[in-house]
Amino acid sequence: MLENRQFDNSDIQSVMLDDENSTLIILDQTLLPNEKIFLRLTNQNQIWEAIYSLRVRGAPAIGIAAAYGAYLGIKESKAESYEQLYEDLKKVKEYLASSRPTAVNLFWALDRMETRFKAEEGKTVDEIKNALKDEADTIRIEDEMVCKSIGENALSLLESGMGILTHCNAGAIATAKYGTALAPIYLGKERGYEFKVYADETRPLLQGARLTAWELNEAGIDVTLICDNMASIVMKEGRIQAVLVGCDRVAANGDTANKIGTSGVAILAKHYRIPFYVCAPLSTIDLKCSTGEDIHIELRSNEEVTSKWYEKPMAPEGVEVYNPCFDVTDNILITAIVTEKGIAYPPYTKSLAELF
Amino acid sequence: MLENRQFDNSDIQSVMLDDENSTLIILDQTLLPNEKIFLRLTNQNQIWEAIYSLRVRGAPAIGIAAAYGAYLGIKESKAESYEQLYEDLKKVKEYLASSRPTAVNLFWALDRMETRFKAEEGKTVDEIKNALKDEADTIRIEDEMVCKSIGENALSLLESGMGILTHCNAGAIATAKYGTALAPIYLGKERGYEFKVYADETRPLLQGARLTAWELNEAGIDVTLICDNMASIVMKEGRIQAVLVGCDRVAANGDTANKIGTSGVAILAKHYRIPFYVCAPLSTIDLKCSTGEDIHIELRSNEEVTSKWYEKPMAPEGVEVYNPCFDVTDNILITAIVTEKGIAYPPYTKSLAELF
Repeated sequence: MLENRQFDNSDIQSVMLDDENSTLIILDQTLLPNEKIFLRLTNQNQIWEAIYSLRVRGAPAIGIAAAYGAYLGIKESKAESYEQLYEDLKKVKEYLASSRPTAVNLFWALDRMETRFKAEEGKTVDEIKNALKDEADTIRIEDEMVCKSIGENALSLLESGMGILTHCNAGAIATAKYGTALAPIYLGKERGYEFKVYADETRPLLQGARLTAWELNEAGIDVTLICDNMASIVMKEGRIQAVLVGCDRVAANGDTANKIGTSGVAILAKHYRIPFYVCAPLSTIDLKCSTGEDIHIELRSNEEVTSKWYEKPMAPEGVEVYNPCFDVTDNILITAIVTEKGIAYPPYTKSLAELF
Repeated sequence: MLENRQFDNSDIQSVMLDDENSTLIILDQTLLPNEKIFLRLTNQNQIWEAIYSLRVRGAPAIGIAAAYGAYLGIKESKAESYEQLYEDLKKVKEYLASSRPTAVNLFWALDRMETRFKAEEGKTVDEIKNALKDEADTIRIEDEMVCKSIGENALSLLESGMGILTHCNAGAIATAKYGTALAPIYLGKERGYEFKVYADETRPLLQGARLTAWELNEAGIDVTLICDNMASIVMKEGRIQAVLVGCDRVAANGDTANKIGTSGVAILAKHYRIPFYVCAPLSTIDLKCSTGEDIHIELRSNEEVTSKWYEKPMAPEGVEVYNPCFDVTDNILITAIVTEKGIAYPPYTKSLAELF
């Protein structure tokens, strides 16, 4: 299942299908920055586990992995008819959808695979299987284009020399390529912009320290790591001119679920009058969800806070812990939501709807 | 140098002189919560190292340790005159003052030892040495009374059933007894108040997880550990009715230096309209320092952020890190400053001066 590969940072691909269309190859993000290991996943159980355990993470990358998971999940099916194969697909879809409760891309990608499946009615089983492979490829390729467009749009809001704070990882490895919040940084670098990026370490799973600082550092971008509780002082000291974050789900009114701590960063940015931008593919915008109150927040294990990573426990044994994985940033705290179709400004209920 | 002792949590003493007046016994706070080890320190180098390495920490406890350090530093002096002994004291004082740059209690305690020294002019060398031991004892005993008074005053601002957020550790082990920010929690418990305390883990040194959660848990107080970036969500969910923090130095205008992250918590509290209280012994209020801009902020090592505690590095090798140990909370964010002499409200330039 493990494979060491030459890691070419100029073209980070954290989720891809192998040349024989039989194996999903993912960069195991839980091992970064100390080990760069690619996993070879051949069945839906492995893919479910990789999503659940955050080996593949970031809303777009999860969507891509789930799409390929749906394909690989029915690829070896013995079904001989459309109806039989559809039953198999629905089982795979339901199973993969249970891996993470908050990221809407997961459901979006699986729904899209089902829609394509239905569009192929009348074709042979093999033709339908091939169509699903094609649809997953398309989701991946489109994601790369989406990220690039988000990067272009976000870059129009920035100037060279700016200090930029980001939280968690919405970078290349969280998507097909470029990332969402980090896309303007990468595109800007290609065009000679000089940014100074501050990366919140993002407790408890340290995606900022392990992933964002790593991928920016590898790409030769000026990045400084801080603890989450240092965001206020770097803003106060005038080091930050813009905050860029990704998102896991955006409600119709602009309320945005993203990694725990994002809402706090947004409140600090408002206090210090620093613009706060959410970079959001349209696939993360859920118009059926009217406000952030409708977004279910995943609670994770105490151990992530008290002892994961550590040589020994860093909290007293048995202490009560509260460990929500996401929080919701109220729309009033968000300066703009940057999508591949354009930049939405408040009031979001109107501006987001107009993008569709 | 090491000694394991029965740890009686009902009367935590983290800094004390032994019965023969020759050894400073301190609880090594760097080893908590996994080990409860008391160190026996007999010379100024050991005491300097214990302060520098945060084995003894918390502004009041540092002051007490430094006072005993000044005494132990001249106790074995061969000086035969007041003048010779004074030269020795000044050297010890200068040396111990270099151990931590931000905590004003350190300088306050050392200045007080020097003042007492000068008041003893005309006495024998032995009498002067005994007077210094007496002064250090007095600092410790007064600190206990100060903490109790702060607890009484702060308790008057609270009601049973409240959820209380605290940052870092301003507890019993940071002082002679009771703590500052935690004093009303302990006093309240004795009187049947039920508080639900949320402890920020306080990266990078995890004083909240290792020390606050530990000492409250040991005392049977309801405490829940959160990561620093979860303060916003617990406030938004209505779990917090008051924030209580300690401080390292308060300027004449109320600007308050405290553990890194405190200013962020204050901004969140203001956003959610939750009162934010600083618990401050008068010894931490520095009227000679007019605003927070005059407070020097200690920068500490990158390694505290990237690899300390961890089994392996949690950030890419060589990444740039910014690691300020404190931040300054602007006076406009502070609802009240609670001292042993009473509660100061804005405008602080007036109310703090009136306390002296």
